[in-house]
Amino acid sequence: MTNQSTPVIDQYIAKLKLKSSDFTIEEVKGFAIKIVKGLGLKVLKKISHAFEPCGITFIFILAQSHLAIHTWPESGLLHIDLVSCVKIDGEKFEKLLRNIFNETGLLAIEIKQLS
Amino acid sequence: MTNQSTPVIDQYIAKLKLKSSDFTIEEVKGFAIKIVKGLGLKVLKKISHAFEPCGITFIFILAQSHLAIHTWPESGLLHIDLVSCVKIDGEKFEKLLRNIFNETGLLAIEIKQLS
Repeated sequence: MTNQSTPVIDQYIAKLKLKSSDFTIEEVKGFAIKIVKGLGLKVLKKISHAFEPCGITFIFILAQSHLAIHTWPESGLLHIDLVSCVKIDGEKFEKLLRNIFNETGLLAIEIKQLS
Repeated sequence: MTNQSTPVIDQYIAKLKLKSSDFTIEEVKGFAIKIVKGLGLKVLKKISHAFEPCGITFIFILAQSHLAIHTWPESGLLHIDLVSCVKIDGEKFEKLLRNIFNETGLLAIEIKQLS
């Protein structure tokens, strides 16, 4: 479906396995801020939800599209979904995630890019 | 990164090329409601943004994760990002999108699944 009028839509999905992903909304918001700052993206709005008994969804609407983070503390999983209408440097993104999450007990990281 | 404690995370990205994707927030919300109803998903919260001069971002936080819709009216493009912790039937999803968007001048549809 590519043609000259198609905009850039860069999308990265990162699945992180952590020792624990039982974070508060404020902690997940902190990760989200580090990601958007690290990539030079601009936040417009935010929304979040804390699930019972556990699990957080945190979403930024960005000037460049959106960043969504979901946690599944029962599995130590944190899922990042970044859609951007500007190109994201994949290596920079992975390095940034490792920097942010290394200190939270990062066990494994799997990143997929769609464009 | 698959192991027995990893939850189901089903993700579909649909790019739709339309005669026009210059919709209002209410219209995009209408599409989002039809998608979640058609798939039996549950809405918890919503957020949206209207860009200048054009373009809409509309996001539902779902009990099952999130649905985000972005429009690029300058390119007739509508981008759907659905993350779900319950399995989504891909054929059902495509049929649903065709039903919803056929009447809005659907020219092409491209669906990718990540799981």
